[in-house]
Amino acid sequence: MRALDDLLAFQRETEALAQVMGRLGWDQETVMPRGAAVQRGDEMAALEGVLHARRTDPRIGDWLAGAQATTQAEAAQLRLIARSFERARKIPARLAAEIARVTSVAQGQWAQARRAEDLTGFLPVLGQVVALRREEGAALAEGGDAYDALLDGYEPGITGAEIGALFDRMRPRLVALRAAVMAADPAPELTGHFPKITQLALTEEIARAFGYDLTRGRIDEAVHPFSSGSFNDVRITTRVDEGDPLGCLYSTVHEVGHAGYEQNIDQSYGLTALGQGVSMGVHESQSRIYENQLGRSPAFCQWLYARMVDRFGPLSVDGPEAFARAVNRVASGFIRTEADEVHYNLHIMLRFDLERDLMRGDLVLDDLEAAWNDRFLSDFGVTVDRPSHGMLQDVHWPVGLFGYFPTYTLGNVYAGCLHAALRADLPSLDDDLARGDVSGALCWLKTRVQTHGGLRLPRETIEHATGGPVSEAPLLDYLEAKFGALYGL
Amino acid sequence: MRALDDLLAFQRETEALAQVMGRLGWDQETVMPRGAAVQRGDEMAALEGVLHARRTDPRIGDWLAGAQATTQAEAAQLRLIARSFERARKIPARLAAEIARVTSVAQGQWAQARRAEDLTGFLPVLGQVVALRREEGAALAEGGDAYDALLDGYEPGITGAEIGALFDRMRPRLVALRAAVMAADPAPELTGHFPKITQLALTEEIARAFGYDLTRGRIDEAVHPFSSGSFNDVRITTRVDEGDPLGCLYSTVHEVGHAGYEQNIDQSYGLTALGQGVSMGVHESQSRIYENQLGRSPAFCQWLYARMVDRFGPLSVDGPEAFARAVNRVASGFIRTEADEVHYNLHIMLRFDLERDLMRGDLVLDDLEAAWNDRFLSDFGVTVDRPSHGMLQDVHWPVGLFGYFPTYTLGNVYAGCLHAALRADLPSLDDDLARGDVSGALCWLKTRVQTHGGLRLPRETIEHATGGPVSEAPLLDYLEAKFGALYGL
Repeated sequence: MRALDDLLAFQRETEALAQVMGRLGWDQETVMPRGAAVQRGDEMAALEGVLHARRTDPRIGDWLAGAQATTQAEAAQLRLIARSFERARKIPARLAAEIARVTSVAQGQWAQARRAEDLTGFLPVLGQVVALRREEGAALAEGGDAYDALLDGYEPGITGAEIGALFDRMRPRLVALRAAVMAADPAPELTGHFPKITQLALTEEIARAFGYDLTRGRIDEAVHPFSSGSFNDVRITTRVDEGDPLGCLYSTVHEVGHAGYEQNIDQSYGLTALGQGVSMGVHESQSRIYENQLGRSPAFCQWLYARMVDRFGPLSVDGPEAFARAVNRVASGFIRTEADEVHYNLHIMLRFDLERDLMRGDLVLDDLEAAWNDRFLSDFGVTVDRPSHGMLQDVHWPVGLFGYFPTYTLGNVYAGCLHAALRADLPSLDDDLARGDVSGALCWLKTRVQTHGGLRLPRETIEHATGGPVSEAPLLDYLEAKFGALYGL
Repeated sequence: MRALDDLLAFQRETEALAQVMGRLGWDQETVMPRGAAVQRGDEMAALEGVLHARRTDPRIGDWLAGAQATTQAEAAQLRLIARSFERARKIPARLAAEIARVTSVAQGQWAQARRAEDLTGFLPVLGQVVALRREEGAALAEGGDAYDALLDGYEPGITGAEIGALFDRMRPRLVALRAAVMAADPAPELTGHFPKITQLALTEEIARAFGYDLTRGRIDEAVHPFSSGSFNDVRITTRVDEGDPLGCLYSTVHEVGHAGYEQNIDQSYGLTALGQGVSMGVHESQSRIYENQLGRSPAFCQWLYARMVDRFGPLSVDGPEAFARAVNRVASGFIRTEADEVHYNLHIMLRFDLERDLMRGDLVLDDLEAAWNDRFLSDFGVTVDRPSHGMLQDVHWPVGLFGYFPTYTLGNVYAGCLHAALRADLPSLDDDLARGDVSGALCWLKTRVQTHGGLRLPRETIEHATGGPVSEAPLLDYLEAKFGALYGL
């Protein structure tokens, strides 16, 4: 048992240091003084150097060779540690540290460029990020597809070809649904002035309703909503627009899905390789099912409507049915994170095609904006009018997360599967949701998915929860039924 | 030059990681969810393990042997790195990590125990902290005095015997001054209700007046005011009592003294061994001169009185002279951080004697509270009525900072020396302070002390700034003159 014990003790420290890195990222996006940006880059590069050295420590190979797992959890830990070891060993330490440093600096420059609508000034540092990640992808792929190698970092076991095929299957039904909805009478829009302080209070109430444990987390404001951390320190951020309370509210429910997943992992997995969400796709399935299948369901909207009226007074939309239509209003907006469920996956398909071409060298950075804007006009029928409505809208590329975007749609697909199974098990779900009671659904998700952390592979995790194979059909069926009803198609 | 370059590059990463450790401490005391306390202990222990491994890396010995300094700054860096290497090598890695873990946990328990006035429940973890630090002191002392070894970590080059002798010289004049002041007519007390939001706004205004650069820092609330970080990310905390605006205000000026020191160090020293205050005593000299010799001067009180009236309306003390007497009011309070300049050093002498006995094994933890309370009654004439007014008031012992307290009085002594020299150079200082203009004094301190960081030894730093030897006489002369005038002695 000595090799196993030594390996797991070593891994525990590595996991703790990885949590520290996550905290630095949280700090950077919420409270860091802006003059600290360059210094923070050096700090994160130094810590990344430490993490990389640990993840490639030759003793891991020896320990893995000598370790004998006696439980499913131990076997899963050995599998995950071996995977991390194999990947990390392919990346030179210099490259790992340089990626940490440059992406930290690029994040600050992105926030400024986005405010200033200055794409040109941002391209040089974005170019560095692209070059570094291409170099990393090539090192990981060892002659194979660089994009696949990066994608595998976020969703182990899936390839760009599989994603492409999935998207090809989904696209016709999404495009047809979009066309039908856009031709129907438009849904009402919620308008008015919604004071920030009231939005934040209601947001915290909803976060608690969705099970977020604030003794092990906190809610702050940031440019881009995100969830950060694992185990007993899992923080989320939100942003407030006083003209649009639904943005703050639903982005928070979304992040609570991510945070709830982390908080609900079995406590004995804390600071082990099992102690975080198993993949970005499975993570997104939790945030999406919280946000959409539960939070935007007409049933939950009944309860939320009453809470909104209670907090803000009479709304511009009258009654829970109209409110549910406003919550699920379909429109060709520029911003992915604000997109309705019909458009959302089309945003992802755009980013997938562009970033895959970029990583493969089939698209150069100078042509990216034009490619984005052309594609956006073609898919959404509107012309991008400023960088913050186009390729500067997301933090992902600036911080080098190429290969991450497709996991959002994968998460939607997984959420579709989970939702179908959950509905079958909980026949009174709509009655509960109409009373604002999400606990039955949360319990189902916790016991079926969340508590298991990294115990199984991503796809197995979903299939274990649902008892059936992963497929895009439940998601598309759900979307057609929901929006068909809301729009009287 | 290869050895020197390699050593300095290695040191730069270590300094960056040390900054990360500081950030974790800041996070813990300001924004960390309380349920994260145990996990944070593991995180800090892991990072401490990394730092300790780096500080004891055998390559440092080789590099030091091969490195040739060609400038004063390089020579100082080599001296500081060698000192750190020698100290760190004496401490087993297990002990360093255990101290980081236990003190992190103890800090959270201290905050709870302080709120709950539960000394008994806190003693077990404090006992662990004491035992670990005694073990560390013994390891560092290698047969010498364990307390001296710990003290040397905060104030390089000084011994407990020197501190004891200094305190023996200071005590009679302080006791006599205290007796005279306590026998005089008492100063007026500032009373009333001072809204938190207004206190925080005025506090930020005063912090800026004292040169705090908020683009490279921030102000948050915490249980215990502190300053944290170096170079371009230097944060301070404050605490607000709506009945006592002077507490918030002057604790902030104090922390701005610490933070200003860090922010004003030569930028080229950032993330090097020279890039932080040279010792705790010199650090405290900056915070004390900002707070007391400048901030509490009758001249500055003229300006502050007008700002207070402007922000809060009429005060319970009428006119700037009465306000200056209220600001410098002498009273036998329980709390060191709220103590006036006459009492302050008596608090330190109490702690010095007790902690020295504790570290040497001449006092056991179970007897500490009684020893504290007996001594407090004898020195201050009042009976400690609850743990938060006694030995639970400070965070220092709970986080293991034995040997730290005497540097506060050393800082006062240094501040006395600096103040005398500064007054001699700036004859119009009181005119400037009466207009709220601290810039002349700040510039003097920046160029004489702050910008040099760790270039010289602590005592040399002060002597270089003043052009004369360090002595307690200027401080005692200043106190007798100031309080003699305020109290009509």
